[in-house]
Amino acid sequence: MTIQIIGFAKSAYTLKVTAVLKELGIPYEVTQPAKFEDIKTPEYLATKHPFGKIPVLIDDGFRLYESRAITRYLINKYQGTKNSTVLIPSDVQKAALVEQFISVETSYYDGPVSKLVAQEVFTKLRGGSPDPEIVKEAREEINKVLDVYEKILEGKDYLTGEFSLADVLHCPYTHYSVATGHDDLWNDPKRPNVARWWKNISERESWKKIVDELKQ
Amino acid sequence: MTIQIIGFAKSAYTLKVTAVLKELGIPYEVTQPAKFEDIKTPEYLATKHPFGKIPVLIDDGFRLYESRAITRYLINKYQGTKNSTVLIPSDVQKAALVEQFISVETSYYDGPVSKLVAQEVFTKLRGGSPDPEIVKEAREEINKVLDVYEKILEGKDYLTGEFSLADVLHCPYTHYSVATGHDDLWNDPKRPNVARWWKNISERESWKKIVDELKQ
Ligand SMILES: N[C@@H](CCC(=O)N[C@@H](CS)C(=O)NCC(=O)O)C(=O)O
Ligand SMILES: N[C@@H](CCC(=O)N[C@@H](CS)C(=O)NCC(=O)O)C(=O)O
Repeated sequence: MTIQIIGFAKSAYTLKVTAVLKELGIPYEVTQPAKFEDIKTPEYLATKHPFGKIPVLIDDGFRLYESRAITRYLINKYQGTKNSTVLIPSDVQKAALVEQFISVETSYYDGPVSKLVAQEVFTKLRGGSPDPEIVKEAREEINKVLDVYEKILEGKDYLTGEFSLADVLHCPYTHYSVATGHDDLWNDPKRPNVARWWKNISERESWKKIVDELKQ
Repeated sequence: MTIQIIGFAKSAYTLKVTAVLKELGIPYEVTQPAKFEDIKTPEYLATKHPFGKIPVLIDDGFRLYESRAITRYLINKYQGTKNSTVLIPSDVQKAALVEQFISVETSYYDGPVSKLVAQEVFTKLRGGSPDPEIVKEAREEINKVLDVYEKILEGKDYLTGEFSLADVLHCPYTHYSVATGHDDLWNDPKRPNVARWWKNISERESWKKIVDELKQ
């Protein structure tokens, strides 16, 4: 049975999951709730996600919610079955470093970057216009975070050295920031390591497919 | 070589790690920075944690930061070596549910509960007094989250059904909330499942040892 992802196809959290599915070469289909309110109904809360969020995975009757948990599950179950991409290595120390950088993404990166994306994408979708003060504040926060990434990425092509799940999880929000006119932050000559890293991960074939689909 | 944890022994994030070490039966020592500012020095940022946080693990020369990443590493490496406690099961679906509830803890639980603890513990440590408005707001948020936990825990002793890392990670902040006069939230007759769960996890021998050490 085809893997089913319940989610809004363009949501950054759904994209964290579909980007991993594309990397692993696993077919899937995305089932979109008809409207946002549908994820707050008693039925959705009882049978899909008790906190009323997307994405949710259904894999042959097994239901799982929370994007990063879903990606780890998909890797544990399907990595190596369709191609040779390794997103979580089997070596205990290498796997630990992947988890370290997933926590960095969750704890320090996603907050400021999603704040910017909320203004640039979601406020506009709702017919509003971005608040310049919040945009400025988010950009300052992102600058500080990327200065730390610049050090982390010294001499490395990817966060742990090798391409991994930690890199993939950064793609969706970064993509939306770059695509809405903030590419200067990720292509700053003062941060060559960050620029190289973003080029490496955003130019992967599987991510380019995701970006193509976003345009449809 | 004994596992070394760099952190403030009473910090909730350090306790997430030491609680897991106690559960696994692994000896460790906690090295406390002399003062808070020490974790912001260029040397600390360059060699310990680039974002200036604790805890950091040093295991026979291998350094790892971020509490939840550290706990997964310790389990992958040491689970089953000293006792039979299972914090992450080998079954792929069961392990996925542990990750699902770790993400629930990170995404929905820790925020409101740590907001309360910041007021009740850390504001007091700094000689201030808790802001009643923030305490009230945090309590309302916690009530909403625990109402969802009440449903999740229906018919279950632990979050996934079996005791796991997901339960352990909830202990430190919950302990501080309960210990500072907010036990009514976790012992509400309207939430018998939450009350049973908190009893189950807070009365484990390894957690009681942690609480004893906190009193010293
Ligand atoms: N921690 C969740 C976050 C998911 C999330 O926030 N999804 C958004 C979609 S972009 C959502 O469902 N928002 C609905 C809401 O917050 O009410 C995960 O990693 O899956
Ligand atoms: N995401 C980190 C959070 C750690 C954290 O926030 N630790 C606090 C200690 S309670 C800290 O180092 N605070 C210093 C600061 O934020 O400046 C983890 O899970 O380890």
